[in-house]
Amino acid sequence: MTVTTTAAEVEFGLLYAEVQQFYSRQMQLFDSFEAEPWAQTFTEDAVFDVPTLPAPVVGRAALASNVRRNAEVHAGSGELLRHWLGMLDARQQSDGTVHTRSYALVYLTPRGGEPRVHRVCVMEDVLVPAPGGWQVAHRLVTRDDLP
Amino acid sequence: MTVTTTAAEVEFGLLYAEVQQFYSRQMQLFDSFEAEPWAQTFTEDAVFDVPTLPAPVVGRAALASNVRRNAEVHAGSGELLRHWLGMLDARQQSDGTVHTRSYALVYLTPRGGEPRVHRVCVMEDVLVPAPGGWQVAHRLVTRDDLP
Amino acid sequence: MTVTTTAAEVEFGLLYAEVQQFYSRQMQLFDSFEAEPWAQTFTEDAVFDVPTLPAPVVGRAALASNVRRNAEVHAGSGELLRHWLGMLDARQQSDGTVHTRSYALVYLTPRGGEPRVHRVCVMEDVLVPAPGGWQVAHRLVTRDDLP
Repeated sequence: MTVTTTAAEVEFGLLYAEVQQFYSRQMQLFDSFEAEPWAQTFTEDAVFDVPTLPAPVVGRAALASNVRRNAEVHAGSGELLRHWLGMLDARQQSDGTVHTRSYALVYLTPRGGEPRVHRVCVMEDVLVPAPGGWQVAHRLVTRDDLP
Repeated sequence: MTVTTTAAEVEFGLLYAEVQQFYSRQMQLFDSFEAEPWAQTFTEDAVFDVPTLPAPVVGRAALASNVRRNAEVHAGSGELLRHWLGMLDARQQSDGTVHTRSYALVYLTPRGGEPRVHRVCVMEDVLVPAPGGWQVAHRLVTRDDLP
Repeated sequence: MTVTTTAAEVEFGLLYAEVQQFYSRQMQLFDSFEAEPWAQTFTEDAVFDVPTLPAPVVGRAALASNVRRNAEVHAGSGELLRHWLGMLDARQQSDGTVHTRSYALVYLTPRGGEPRVHRVCVMEDVLVPAPGGWQVAHRLVTRDDLP
């Protein structure tokens, strides 16, 4: 078979793999309450707009602080959360950023109990290039159960 | 480490990323009831064989019409559906088509209510090359709950 | 846009796609109770350490035997299981192996009944290169519901 792969196709293929790997690590860090490493996956002045919080969180320090609070809440509950992304649509922009829109699920498992789907969400990110990979500059999450 | 990547490996890597991106956009269009853009992800005479419908749907016009009907039904229900694919097995054929077999989940979330897994399915597609990407020529979906 | 893709980036992109494809086939074989082809996705002396079994299973013969036992149990139950991986973090090691950490879900669907999330797990694998792809040399699975 003749290979007629263009440079742009190669670039997209690599970008898509890199972004998947980026999100996998980011979600695993979040679920493990690794506050600082997780905050490093955002830009210094990132905006994190999620319906669970009363107002958007801005900046790495506030992001990390928020994860530490989650860790305390969940330590007492005996519940584990797992954040999954899927149906990732990644679109490279002419300014070098990547806009993504994906679905996000949260699974909740009580110790000794039955797991369940806790949240179904849509996540829209602006990713910017960073040394060794990507960082989130802006995140907007909406929940399917909220009007 | 010496890189000994072959052209065939490069081609597979790009194909796999492209097909994932294709499905992500297609499912997002479907869940947003974007009837015409969604129908354009199929060939003009595509066959769409799913257990929810009494007979296979054939052709883009019928596919788009079906999505518009879904939109009306769901507008009244206050429920959101999200279609996810996973465990994508993509195999390039010697005729240039790609045969895929993947798992498909449907999550359902009532407004103000708890989300749940609504359907667990297996999806088998024949994809054909199209300008700028891929199109589905044939889709067969089976549901795990049906005998 | 100037393409400045390095060989290492190309290699990572292909690796990530290959590993996703590998897991998709492996999980589909498992859910279809294809004991021998599934066992071939492990090394001859692979260690399979999962909380469902009283002790780690070692070697292909024992792995295949275990799948045949699952097939018998489920034939009578009328339930279908689907194993999904997600949030795949794949890290190539200097010795040529790939260490992966991913989330694993098991969906269970009774015939004629409602599907549900049965298990939420974390899966850690050591993959080794094999002719035509990869094999699992070591797998450790932990369940979120178990202490």
